[in-house]
Amino acid sequence: MIVGKKWFTAVWPEGRTVKMIDQTLLPHKFRIASFKNHHETAKAIKEMVVRGAGSIGAAAAFGAAQAVMEGKATKGFEELLNTRPTARDLFWAIERMEKAVKGKDGKEAKLAAVKEAREISGSYVENGRLIGEHGSVLLHDGARVLTHCNAGWLAMQDWGSALAPIYWAKREGNRVFVFADETRPRLQGARLTAWELANEGIEHKIIADNAAGYYMQKGDVDICIVGADRVARNGDIANKIGTYEKAVLAKENGIPFYVAAPLSTIDLKCKKGADIKIEERDEREVLFIEGKRIANEKSHALNPGFDVTPARYIKGIITEEGIIRPKPDEIKGVFDA
Amino acid sequence: MIVGKKWFTAVWPEGRTVKMIDQTLLPHKFRIASFKNHHETAKAIKEMVVRGAGSIGAAAAFGAAQAVMEGKATKGFEELLNTRPTARDLFWAIERMEKAVKGKDGKEAKLAAVKEAREISGSYVENGRLIGEHGSVLLHDGARVLTHCNAGWLAMQDWGSALAPIYWAKREGNRVFVFADETRPRLQGARLTAWELANEGIEHKIIADNAAGYYMQKGDVDICIVGADRVARNGDIANKIGTYEKAVLAKENGIPFYVAAPLSTIDLKCKKGADIKIEERDEREVLFIEGKRIANEKSHALNPGFDVTPARYIKGIITEEGIIRPKPDEIKGVFDA
Repeated sequence: MIVGKKWFTAVWPEGRTVKMIDQTLLPHKFRIASFKNHHETAKAIKEMVVRGAGSIGAAAAFGAAQAVMEGKATKGFEELLNTRPTARDLFWAIERMEKAVKGKDGKEAKLAAVKEAREISGSYVENGRLIGEHGSVLLHDGARVLTHCNAGWLAMQDWGSALAPIYWAKREGNRVFVFADETRPRLQGARLTAWELANEGIEHKIIADNAAGYYMQKGDVDICIVGADRVARNGDIANKIGTYEKAVLAKENGIPFYVAAPLSTIDLKCKKGADIKIEERDEREVLFIEGKRIANEKSHALNPGFDVTPARYIKGIITEEGIIRPKPDEIKGVFDA
Repeated sequence: MIVGKKWFTAVWPEGRTVKMIDQTLLPHKFRIASFKNHHETAKAIKEMVVRGAGSIGAAAAFGAAQAVMEGKATKGFEELLNTRPTARDLFWAIERMEKAVKGKDGKEAKLAAVKEAREISGSYVENGRLIGEHGSVLLHDGARVLTHCNAGWLAMQDWGSALAPIYWAKREGNRVFVFADETRPRLQGARLTAWELANEGIEHKIIADNAAGYYMQKGDVDICIVGADRVARNGDIANKIGTYEKAVLAKENGIPFYVAAPLSTIDLKCKKGADIKIEERDEREVLFIEGKRIANEKSHALNPGFDVTPARYIKGIITEEGIIRPKPDEIKGVFDA
């Protein structure tokens, strides 16, 4: 997407360096961070300089290419795999990188790695655009969308997943209004989604996560669209903590609830949502905001990073191949086609 | 409740001054604020130095007594009524104060006002204790309770509403664990509930509001108890924004959802939840935390302070007269008895 007058993706390579928009500093500062080797790139993924399933996938691919160039492919791949446990795209990207360099050595391996990483990154750009095109049919002129966390271009290199249909609708001349859940504890909605929407000139309001049900109950929400970190074979999905709450509320209020995700987020080896490993994150994300303690001094917090939304709450999954229902046969079918 | 070695209520009078624990400074500072006349007391209610239905009621009563002592009863009562639109107790307390001084003048009015205000405050202390006693039957040893916002003693002078059963259970020797929703935007859960629970030695963890559904889905929550700002005749209730979300999630997961409130919170003139006026608060409560902007600079927020939970999600209302079902005949019956 265009920031200022320049086109950016969330992550990109420059020679042996991996560059990222530092998402920990947004929206207050738009700053490019540089990571000179695969250790640094792995650390950046872990510390969420880059986040969002697709952008994590792309970052892992570029990090893997760095590892190959450094002659440390095997160990480097493992280090990258151990950064975040929930996002399917991380594993998918590393698997692709492993396959690309398998049986190759020296310069041949390096060239193959660089090429594959660029292709992985490019696939997110293209798939985001296609998700936007397919998903935009759900958005009539004046549609009011509720989204959770950030599943925009920062999370998937360019167009995004959940926000791509909104960006596409806008380019087709349709007005869309977005309720952006602020998304505690890390506030990706208030910080990143709001920043993206403002940058794209899309009308929106930030709400506390607690207020989503209120607006659904009032009849002010036409549709919910969220991203996913992993989609199981049965259509259950893992996504940012709180997604399950919004899905239950949408069902209760008769509001269609859609998940937008590229096929790379679907994990056919994962039977059901309960099998997805949920990342437990540091309690300080809940207890502090920007270094300042907001909670009672003597209290502790629990901080699960994701939750699982069972397939029965999901009306459809918007993929680059079209919108499918969260059913095992349709999910498998889209890979067989 | 005891803080340090001294017994406190949320609000109390000292001569013509109204004193309050400054709840905007908790949990970081425990400081007593003083308000010399009814203007100052009204401003303190509006700015949430004191909050919570019962404590607002008590503060309004003491403020009304100040107005009578200043010879400005009529105007003063009106000023106090205009501070917060949702809490039933504010209106209930002022109505009682009006009745108490009606037809009286001079010293007689002043004495009646002071006496009535003390009785109103005392009724919250006693009713909180009774709510605790009645509600504690719902809490077996080891019970895991989820609560939202703060409906403890800070919100109702002494025992509280939603937290009173937990305090009572503890005194009876039962261990209770509490999930405290942090309760954005003002974080009353992370600040006040966590502070109260720590002060009383009750095991608890703070969670982002988004994580409540996750723990309910996991089977980690035995019961939800929340307070209320107003209860309608049909059993619908208004409470802190996000309460509706938790109620829907509790129902979906087969978890009993209870509302704790004194009869003074029940508004028989209010037919149903949809008739309750919901306070729209300043967007800066969402966009800033402790003076620091957390959200995107160019974005705006919506900030409803309360939501309505329909009676069908509520298993029971814990009152000083016992636990009643949220049905018109039971609600009316408890007043007729």
